[in-house]
Amino acid sequence: MVESMVNRMRHGYSDAEKAAIYRVIYERRDVRTGYLPRPLEDAILYRLLAAAHRAPSVGFMQPWRFIIVRDVSLRTAVHSIFLRANAEAAAAYVGERRASYGRLRLEGLLDAPQHLCVVCDPTSDRGHGLGRGSMPATAAYSVACAIQNLWLAARAEEIGVGWVSILDPAAIKELLRIPSEMELVAYLCIGYVEGFSTAPDLERAGWEERAEIASLVRDNYFDQASQFDEARR
Amino acid sequence: MVESMVNRMRHGYSDAEKAAIYRVIYERRDVRTGYLPRPLEDAILYRLLAAAHRAPSVGFMQPWRFIIVRDVSLRTAVHSIFLRANAEAAAAYVGERRASYGRLRLEGLLDAPQHLCVVCDPTSDRGHGLGRGSMPATAAYSVACAIQNLWLAARAEEIGVGWVSILDPAAIKELLRIPSEMELVAYLCIGYVEGFSTAPDLERAGWEERAEIASLVRDNYFDQASQFDEARR
Repeated sequence: MVESMVNRMRHGYSDAEKAAIYRVIYERRDVRTGYLPRPLEDAILYRLLAAAHRAPSVGFMQPWRFIIVRDVSLRTAVHSIFLRANAEAAAAYVGERRASYGRLRLEGLLDAPQHLCVVCDPTSDRGHGLGRGSMPATAAYSVACAIQNLWLAARAEEIGVGWVSILDPAAIKELLRIPSEMELVAYLCIGYVEGFSTAPDLERAGWEERAEIASLVRDNYFDQASQFDEARR
Repeated sequence: MVESMVNRMRHGYSDAEKAAIYRVIYERRDVRTGYLPRPLEDAILYRLLAAAHRAPSVGFMQPWRFIIVRDVSLRTAVHSIFLRANAEAAAAYVGERRASYGRLRLEGLLDAPQHLCVVCDPTSDRGHGLGRGSMPATAAYSVACAIQNLWLAARAEEIGVGWVSILDPAAIKELLRIPSEMELVAYLCIGYVEGFSTAPDLERAGWEERAEIASLVRDNYFDQASQFDEARR
Protein backbone atom coordinates (compact mmCIF):
# COMPACT_ATOMS: atom_id res chain seq x y z
CA MET A 1 0.00 0.00 0.00
CA VAL A 2 2.75 2.41 0.94
CA GLU A 3 4.91 1.19 -1.90
CA SER A 4 2.26 2.10 -4.42
CA MET A 5 2.34 5.73 -3.22
CA VAL A 6 6.04 5.99 -3.86
CA ASN A 7 7.26 6.45 -7.37
CA ARG A 8 10.39 4.63 -8.38
CA MET A 9 13.63 6.62 -8.60
CA ARG A 10 12.85 9.09 -11.30
CA HIS A 11 15.33 11.77 -12.12
CA GLY A 12 14.82 14.87 -10.05
CA TYR A 13 12.01 16.36 -8.01
CA SER A 14 9.59 18.81 -9.58
CA ASP A 15 9.10 22.27 -8.10
CA ALA A 16 5.69 21.13 -6.84
CA GLU A 17 7.23 18.13 -5.11
CA LYS A 18 9.92 20.26 -3.49
CA ALA A 19 7.29 22.74 -2.34
CA ALA A 20 5.30 19.92 -0.72
CA ILE A 21 8.39 18.70 1.12
CA TYR A 22 9.32 22.16 2.40
CA ARG A 23 5.68 22.78 3.24
CA VAL A 24 5.46 19.80 5.57
CA ILE A 25 8.80 20.63 7.18
CA TYR A 26 7.53 24.15 7.91
CA GLU A 27 4.01 23.18 8.97
CA ARG A 28 4.90 20.31 11.32
CA ARG A 29 3.85 21.16 14.88
CA ASP A 30 4.19 19.74 18.36
CA VAL A 31 0.51 19.25 19.16
CA ARG A 32 -0.65 19.39 22.78
CA THR A 33 -4.32 20.27 22.36
CA GLY A 34 -7.30 19.39 20.21
CA TYR A 35 -6.87 15.64 19.92
CA LEU A 36 -10.06 13.98 18.70
CA PRO A 37 -11.40 10.77 20.26
CA ARG A 38 -11.44 8.78 17.01
CA PRO A 39 -8.62 6.18 17.12
CA LEU A 40 -6.15 5.90 14.27
CA GLU A 41 -6.87 3.06 11.90
CA ASP A 42 -4.20 0.37 11.76
CA ALA A 43 -3.63 1.01 8.07
CA ILE A 44 -2.66 4.65 8.57
CA LEU A 45 -0.59 3.85 11.64
CA TYR A 46 1.21 1.28 9.55
CA ARG A 47 1.93 3.93 6.91
CA LEU A 48 3.43 6.23 9.53
CA LEU A 49 5.54 3.48 11.08
CA ALA A 50 6.72 2.45 7.61
CA ALA A 51 7.89 6.04 7.08
CA ALA A 52 9.74 5.90 10.40
CA HIS A 53 11.31 2.61 9.37
CA ARG A 54 12.83 4.29 6.30
CA ALA A 55 15.00 6.52 8.46
CA PRO A 56 18.78 6.30 8.31
CA SER A 57 20.35 4.10 10.96
CA VAL A 58 23.94 3.51 11.94
CA GLY A 59 25.18 0.37 10.19
CA PHE A 60 21.59 -0.28 8.98
CA MET A 61 20.90 -1.24 12.60
CA GLN A 62 17.21 -0.21 12.59
CA PRO A 63 17.20 0.01 16.40
CA TRP A 64 13.72 1.61 16.68
CA ARG A 65 10.97 -0.22 18.58
CA PHE A 66 7.43 1.16 18.80
CA ILE A 67 4.93 0.49 21.57
CA ILE A 68 1.38 1.54 20.66
CA VAL A 69 -0.30 2.40 23.95
CA ARG A 70 -4.08 2.28 23.61
CA ASP A 71 -5.03 0.85 27.01
CA VAL A 72 -6.81 3.61 28.91
CA SER A 73 -5.45 2.66 32.31
CA LEU A 74 -1.91 2.84 30.93
CA ARG A 75 -2.57 6.23 29.34
CA THR A 76 -3.96 7.51 32.63
CA ALA A 77 -0.94 6.16 34.50
CA VAL A 78 1.39 7.94 32.07
CA HIS A 79 -0.50 11.16 32.68
CA SER A 80 0.07 10.71 36.43
CA ILE A 81 3.78 10.26 35.78
CA PHE A 82 3.70 13.51 33.80
CA LEU A 83 1.93 15.36 36.62
CA ARG A 84 4.61 14.39 39.11
CA ALA A 85 7.48 15.36 36.79
CA ASN A 86 5.73 18.59 35.86
CA ALA A 87 5.29 19.65 39.49
CA GLU A 88 9.04 19.18 39.96
CA ALA A 89 9.79 21.06 36.76
CA ALA A 90 7.55 23.98 37.72
CA ALA A 91 9.30 24.29 41.08
CA ALA A 92 12.54 25.11 39.26
CA TYR A 93 11.13 28.44 38.02
CA VAL A 94 10.50 31.59 40.04
CA GLY A 95 8.39 34.72 39.69
CA GLU A 96 6.90 35.66 36.35
CA ARG A 97 8.65 32.79 34.55
CA ARG A 98 6.96 30.33 36.91
CA ALA A 99 3.56 31.87 36.34
CA SER A 100 4.19 31.74 32.61
CA TYR A 101 5.19 28.07 32.89
CA GLY A 102 1.97 27.32 34.71
CA ARG A 103 -0.06 28.70 31.82
CA LEU A 104 1.56 26.47 29.21
CA ARG A 105 -0.18 23.39 27.91
CA LEU A 106 2.58 20.80 27.68
CA GLU A 107 0.88 17.52 26.81
CA GLY A 108 -2.32 15.97 25.46
CA LEU A 109 -1.94 12.60 27.16
CA LEU A 110 -5.54 12.19 28.31
CA ASP A 111 -7.04 13.37 25.04
CA ALA A 112 -5.02 11.45 22.48
CA PRO A 113 -6.63 8.02 21.99
CA GLN A 114 -3.23 6.42 21.50
CA HIS A 115 0.31 7.08 22.56
CA LEU A 116 3.46 5.91 20.87
CA CYS A 117 6.41 5.03 23.05
CA VAL A 118 9.60 4.93 20.99
CA VAL A 119 12.49 2.89 22.30
CA CYS A 120 16.05 2.28 21.13
CA ASP A 121 17.43 -1.25 21.41
CA PRO A 122 21.18 -0.68 21.77
CA THR A 123 21.73 -4.42 22.25
CA SER A 124 20.58 -5.42 18.78
CA ASP A 125 23.28 -7.00 16.64
CA ARG A 126 21.43 -6.09 13.47
CA GLY A 127 24.03 -4.23 11.43
CA HIS A 128 26.79 -6.18 13.17
CA GLY A 129 27.88 -3.16 15.18
CA LEU A 130 29.01 -1.24 12.10
CA GLY A 131 29.66 2.44 12.70
CA ARG A 132 28.77 2.64 16.35
CA GLY A 133 31.94 1.46 18.08
CA SER A 134 33.30 4.99 18.01
CA MET A 135 29.99 6.80 18.55
CA PRO A 136 27.50 4.56 20.40
CA ALA A 137 24.91 7.33 20.74
CA THR A 138 24.29 7.13 17.00
CA ALA A 139 21.86 4.26 17.70
CA ALA A 140 19.56 6.59 19.66
CA TYR A 141 20.11 9.37 17.10
CA SER A 142 18.89 6.97 14.41
CA VAL A 143 15.70 6.52 16.42
CA ALA A 144 15.25 10.30 16.62
CA CYS A 145 15.57 10.49 12.83
CA ALA A 146 12.84 7.84 12.56
CA ILE A 147 10.59 9.92 14.80
CA GLN A 148 11.10 12.94 12.55
CA ASN A 149 10.11 10.88 9.49
CA LEU A 150 6.97 9.72 11.28
CA TRP A 151 6.17 13.27 12.41
CA LEU A 152 6.40 14.68 8.88
CA ALA A 153 4.31 11.86 7.39
CA ALA A 154 1.75 12.36 10.16
CA ARG A 155 1.49 16.09 9.42
CA ALA A 156 0.84 15.33 5.76
CA GLU A 157 -1.90 12.93 6.85
CA GLU A 158 -3.39 15.65 9.11
CA ILE A 159 -2.43 13.67 12.20
CA GLY A 160 -1.04 15.43 15.24
CA VAL A 161 2.04 14.34 17.14
CA GLY A 162 3.23 15.73 20.47
CA TRP A 163 6.53 14.80 22.15
CA VAL A 164 6.20 14.63 25.96
CA SER A 165 9.57 14.73 27.73
CA ILE A 166 8.37 15.85 31.16
CA LEU A 167 8.28 12.27 32.41
CA ASP A 168 10.41 10.05 34.63
CA PRO A 169 11.84 7.58 32.07
CA ALA A 170 12.37 4.92 34.72
CA ALA A 171 8.69 5.08 35.70
CA ILE A 172 7.59 4.77 32.06
CA LYS A 173 9.90 1.82 31.52
CA GLU A 174 8.53 0.04 34.56
CA LEU A 175 4.92 0.74 33.55
CA LEU A 176 5.35 -0.57 30.00
CA ARG A 177 7.65 -3.46 31.01
CA ILE A 178 10.56 -2.10 28.98
CA PRO A 179 13.80 -3.93 29.85
CA SER A 180 16.39 -1.80 31.62
CA GLU A 181 18.95 -2.07 28.83
CA MET A 182 16.55 -0.37 26.37
CA GLU A 183 16.66 3.41 25.99
CA LEU A 184 13.44 5.39 26.12
CA VAL A 185 13.92 7.93 23.33
CA ALA A 186 10.48 9.50 23.06
CA TYR A 187 6.97 9.34 24.43
CA LEU A 188 4.53 10.69 21.85
CA CYS A 189 0.86 11.55 21.76
CA ILE A 190 -0.56 10.82 18.34
CA GLY A 191 -4.00 11.19 16.83
CA TYR A 192 -6.42 13.09 14.69
CA VAL A 193 -6.66 16.73 15.73
CA GLU A 194 -8.86 19.77 15.35
CA GLY A 195 -6.10 21.64 13.57
CA PHE A 196 -2.52 22.84 13.53
CA SER A 197 -1.09 26.09 14.86
CA THR A 198 0.53 28.50 12.42
CA ALA A 199 3.57 28.79 14.71
CA PRO A 200 5.05 26.72 17.55
CA ASP A 201 3.02 26.98 20.76
CA LEU A 202 6.03 28.11 22.80
CA GLU A 203 6.68 30.90 20.30
CA ARG A 204 3.02 31.99 20.31
CA ALA A 205 2.95 31.96 24.10
CA GLY A 206 6.00 34.23 24.24
CA TRP A 207 8.07 31.58 26.04
CA GLU A 208 10.91 31.68 23.49
CA GLU A 209 11.71 33.16 20.08
CA ARG A 210 13.10 31.52 16.99
CA ALA A 211 16.85 32.11 16.62
CA GLU A 212 18.35 33.75 13.55
CA ILE A 213 19.88 31.06 11.38
CA ALA A 214 23.11 33.00 10.93
CA SER A 215 23.74 32.76 14.67
CA LEU A 216 23.79 28.95 14.43
CA VAL A 217 26.26 28.56 11.56
CA ARG A 218 30.08 28.58 11.67
CA ASP A 219 32.79 28.37 9.02
CA ASN A 220 35.43 25.65 9.42
CA TYR A 221 35.82 26.14 13.18
CA PHE A 222 33.27 26.32 15.97
CA ASP A 223 34.54 29.73 17.05
CA GLN A 224 34.44 31.23 13.55
CA ALA A 225 31.13 32.92 12.79
CA SER A 226 29.69 32.40 9.34
CA GLN A 227 28.79 35.13 6.87
CA PHE A 228 25.56 33.32 6.34
CA ASP A 229 23.12 36.20 6.66
CA GLU A 230 24.53 37.57 3.43
CA ALA A 231 23.33 34.52 1.56
CA ARG A 232 19.81 35.16 2.70
CA ARG A 233 19.33 38.27 0.64
CA MET B 1 13.38 32.82 -0.40
CA VAL B 2 12.43 29.71 1.50
CA GLU B 3 9.31 31.36 2.84
CA SER B 4 8.06 31.95 -0.67
CA MET B 5 8.25 28.23 -1.42
CA VAL B 6 6.03 27.39 1.50
CA ASN B 7 2.37 27.93 1.19
CA ARG B 8 0.53 29.23 4.20
CA MET B 9 -1.50 26.77 6.26
CA ARG B 10 -4.05 25.55 3.80
CA HIS B 11 -6.44 22.83 4.78
CA GLY B 12 -5.09 19.43 4.03
CA TYR B 13 -2.43 17.97 1.79
CA SER B 14 -3.31 16.81 -1.71
CA ASP B 15 -2.55 13.25 -2.79
CA ALA B 16 0.26 14.62 -4.96
CA GLU B 17 1.79 16.44 -2.00
CA LYS B 18 1.56 13.36 0.19
CA ALA B 19 3.16 11.26 -2.55
CA ALA B 20 6.06 13.73 -2.78
CA ILE B 21 6.61 13.55 0.98
CA TYR B 22 6.58 9.74 1.07
CA ARG B 23 8.74 9.69 -2.05
CA VAL B 24 11.52 11.68 -0.42
CA ILE B 25 11.31 9.64 2.78
CA TYR B 26 11.74 6.45 0.74
CA GLU B 27 14.38 7.76 -1.65
CA ARG B 28 16.69 9.41 0.92
CA ARG B 29 20.06 7.65 0.94
CA ASP B 30 23.28 7.69 2.93
CA VAL B 31 25.68 8.67 0.15
CA ARG B 32 29.32 7.59 0.32
CA THR B 33 30.36 7.72 -3.34
CA GLY B 34 29.93 9.90 -6.38
CA TYR B 35 30.32 13.35 -4.83
CA LEU B 36 30.99 15.96 -7.49
CA PRO B 37 33.63 18.69 -7.04
CA ARG B 38 31.24 21.62 -7.52
CA PRO B 39 30.70 23.32 -4.13
CA LEU B 40 27.21 24.00 -2.85
CA GLU B 41 26.07 27.57 -3.35
CA ASP B 42 25.38 29.50 -0.15
CA ALA B 43 21.76 30.03 -1.15
CA ILE B 44 20.98 26.31 -1.36
CA LEU B 45 22.96 25.56 1.78
CA TYR B 46 20.92 28.22 3.51
CA ARG B 47 17.71 26.54 2.33
CA LEU B 48 18.86 23.20 3.78
CA LEU B 49 19.90 24.73 7.09
CA ALA B 50 16.60 26.58 7.26
CA ALA B 51 14.83 23.23 6.89
CA ALA B 52 16.97 21.82 9.71
CA HIS B 53 16.12 24.85 11.84
CA ARG B 54 12.40 24.01 11.53
CA ALA B 55 12.85 20.76 13.42
CA PRO B 56 11.15 20.18 16.75
CA SER B 57 13.27 20.95 19.79
CA VAL B 58 12.72 20.37 23.46
CA GLY B 59 11.35 23.56 25.01
CA PHE B 60 11.98 25.34 21.66
CA MET B 61 15.67 25.16 22.64
CA GLN B 62 17.01 25.04 19.07
CA PRO B 63 20.30 23.54 20.29
CA TRP B 64 21.69 22.77 16.81
CA ARG B 65 24.95 24.38 15.68
CA PHE B 66 26.36 23.83 12.19
CA ILE B 67 30.01 24.06 11.17
CA ILE B 68 30.50 24.19 7.41
CA VAL B 69 33.92 22.64 6.78
CA ARG B 70 35.28 23.71 3.41
CA ASP B 71 38.96 24.07 4.22
CA VAL B 72 40.80 21.30 2.37
CA SER B 73 43.40 20.72 5.07
CA LEU B 74 40.62 20.24 7.64
CA ARG B 75 38.79 17.83 5.37
CA THR B 76 41.97 15.86 4.85
CA ALA B 77 42.60 15.77 8.60
CA VAL B 78 39.08 14.46 9.20
CA HIS B 79 39.73 11.72 6.67
CA SER B 80 42.87 10.73 8.61
CA ILE B 81 40.79 10.56 11.79
CA PHE B 82 38.39 8.27 9.93
CA LEU B 83 41.22 6.01 8.73
CA ARG B 84 42.45 5.47 12.28
CA ALA B 85 38.96 4.74 13.64
CA ASN B 86 38.20 2.48 10.70
CA ALA B 87 41.33 0.38 11.23
CA GLU B 88 40.23 -0.16 14.83
CA ALA B 89 36.68 -0.97 13.75
CA ALA B 90 37.85 -3.47 11.12
CA ALA B 91 39.97 -5.28 13.71
CA ALA B 92 36.81 -6.14 15.65
CA TYR B 93 35.58 -8.45 12.85
CA VAL B 94 36.92 -11.86 11.93
CA GLY B 95 36.85 -14.15 8.91
CA GLU B 96 34.35 -13.56 6.13
CA ARG B 97 32.68 -10.71 8.01
CA ARG B 98 36.00 -8.88 8.18
CA ALA B 99 36.63 -9.37 4.47
CA SER B 100 33.11 -8.12 3.80
CA TYR B 101 33.73 -5.07 6.01
CA GLY B 102 36.88 -4.29 4.07
CA ARG B 103 34.93 -4.15 0.83
CA LEU B 104 32.42 -1.57 2.10
CA ARG B 105 32.74 2.08 1.17
CA LEU B 106 31.89 3.92 4.39
CA GLU B 107 32.60 7.60 3.70
CA GLY B 108 33.13 10.16 0.96
CA LEU B 109 35.19 12.59 3.03
CA LEU B 110 37.85 13.37 0.41
CA ASP B 111 35.37 13.73 -2.44
CA ALA B 112 32.66 15.91 -0.91
CA PRO B 113 33.70 19.57 -1.34
CA GLN B 114 32.17 20.44 2.00
CA HIS B 115 31.42 18.70 5.26
CA LEU B 116 28.84 19.66 7.83
CA CYS B 117 29.68 19.07 11.46
CA VAL B 118 26.52 19.16 13.58
CA VAL B 119 26.86 19.94 17.25
CA CYS B 120 24.44 20.12 20.17
CA ASP B 121 24.86 22.95 22.66
CA PRO B 122 23.44 21.47 25.88
CA THR B 123 24.44 24.61 27.80
CA SER B 124 22.11 26.95 25.91
CA ASP B 125 19.44 28.54 28.08
CA ARG B 126 17.25 29.19 25.06
CA GLY B 127 13.94 27.58 25.98
CA HIS B 128 14.70 28.19 29.67
CA GLY B 129 15.34 24.50 30.28
CA LEU B 130 11.73 23.55 29.56
CA GLY B 131 11.15 19.83 29.09
CA ARG B 132 14.69 18.60 29.52
CA GLY B 133 15.08 18.41 33.28
CA SER B 134 13.67 14.90 33.26
CA MET B 135 15.17 13.80 29.93
CA PRO B 136 18.35 15.77 29.16
CA ALA B 137 19.17 13.69 26.07
CA THR B 138 16.20 15.28 24.30
CA ALA B 139 18.50 18.19 23.38
CA ALA B 140 20.70 15.90 21.26
CA TYR B 141 17.61 14.10 19.92
CA SER B 142 16.30 17.48 18.72
CA VAL B 143 19.53 17.92 16.79
CA ALA B 144 19.07 14.48 15.19
CA CYS B 145 15.57 15.53 14.09
CA ALA B 146 17.10 18.65 12.51
CA ILE B 147 19.57 16.47 10.62
CA GLN B 148 16.72 14.37 9.25
CA ASN B 149 14.92 17.49 8.02
CA LEU B 150 18.10 18.64 6.28
CA TRP B 151 18.64 15.19 4.79
CA LEU B 152 15.15 15.05 3.29
CA ALA B 153 15.36 18.58 1.89
CA ALA B 154 18.79 17.75 0.44
CA ARG B 155 17.42 14.65 -1.29
CA ALA B 156 14.67 16.72 -2.88
CA GLU B 157 17.33 19.18 -4.11
CA GLU B 158 19.35 16.23 -5.53
CA ILE B 159 22.08 16.79 -2.95
CA GLY B 160 23.75 13.84 -1.28
CA VAL B 161 24.33 13.52 2.47
CA GLY B 162 26.42 10.85 4.18
CA TRP B 163 26.69 10.42 7.95
CA VAL B 164 30.19 9.34 9.03
CA SER B 165 30.26 7.93 12.56
CA ILE B 166 33.54 5.99 12.33
CA LEU B 167 35.46 8.88 13.89
CA ASP B 168 36.96 9.68 17.26
CA PRO B 169 34.65 12.48 18.47
CA ALA B 170 37.36 13.90 20.75
CA ALA B 171 39.75 14.24 17.81
CA ILE B 172 37.10 16.00 15.69
CA LYS B 173 36.29 18.39 18.53
CA GLU B 174 39.93 19.27 18.99
CA LEU B 175 40.45 19.78 15.24
CA LEU B 176 37.46 22.07 14.83
CA ARG B 177 37.98 23.87 18.17
CA ILE B 178 34.64 22.67 19.55
CA PRO B 179 34.41 23.34 23.31
CA SER B 180 34.38 20.23 25.47
CA GLU B 181 30.89 20.86 26.84
CA MET B 182 29.40 20.66 23.30
CA GLU B 183 28.18 17.30 21.99
CA LEU B 184 29.25 16.15 18.54
CA VAL B 185 26.05 14.67 17.14
CA ALA B 186 26.96 14.08 13.51
CA TYR B 187 29.69 14.54 10.97
CA LEU B 188 28.20 14.71 7.48
CA CYS B 189 29.51 14.76 3.95
CA ILE B 190 27.28 16.89 1.78
CA GLY B 191 27.34 17.84 -1.86
CA TYR B 192 26.11 17.35 -5.39
CA VAL B 193 26.33 13.72 -6.46
CA GLU B 194 26.27 11.55 -9.55
CA GLY B 195 23.12 9.84 -8.38
CA PHE B 196 21.28 7.97 -5.67
CA SER B 197 21.10 4.23 -5.04
CA THR B 198 17.75 2.49 -5.30
CA ALA B 199 18.38 0.78 -1.93
CA PRO B 200 20.67 1.39 1.04
CA ASP B 201 24.31 0.51 0.28
CA LEU B 202 24.55 -1.88 3.23
CA GLU B 203 21.46 -3.72 1.97
CA ARG B 204 22.81 -3.92 -1.58
CA ALA B 205 26.16 -5.17 -0.31
CA GLY B 206 24.47 -7.97 1.63
CA TRP B 207 25.72 -6.62 4.96
CA GLU B 208 22.26 -6.46 6.53
CA GLU B 209 18.60 -6.84 5.56
CA ARG B 210 15.66 -4.59 6.27
CA ALA B 211 13.58 -5.82 9.21
CA GLU B 212 9.90 -6.62 8.91
CA ILE B 213 7.92 -3.75 10.41
CA ALA B 214 5.71 -6.09 12.41
CA SER B 215 8.77 -7.27 14.35
CA LEU B 216 9.37 -3.72 15.59
CA VAL B 217 5.89 -2.94 16.90
CA ARG B 218 4.32 -3.83 20.25
CA ASP B 219 0.89 -3.34 21.79
CA ASN B 220 0.71 -1.57 25.16
CA TYR B 221 3.71 -3.38 26.64
CA PHE B 222 7.21 -3.92 25.31
CA ASP B 223 6.85 -7.68 25.65
CA GLN B 224 3.50 -7.84 23.85
CA ALA B 225 3.89 -8.39 20.10
CA SER B 226 1.62 -6.44 17.83
CA GLN B 227 -0.77 -7.90 15.27
CA PHE B 228 0.57 -5.37 12.87
CA ASP B 229 1.26 -7.57 9.87
CA GLU B 230 -2.48 -8.02 9.51
CA ALA B 231 -2.89 -4.32 8.80
CA ARG B 232 -0.48 -4.54 5.93
CA ARG B 233 -2.75 -6.57 3.72
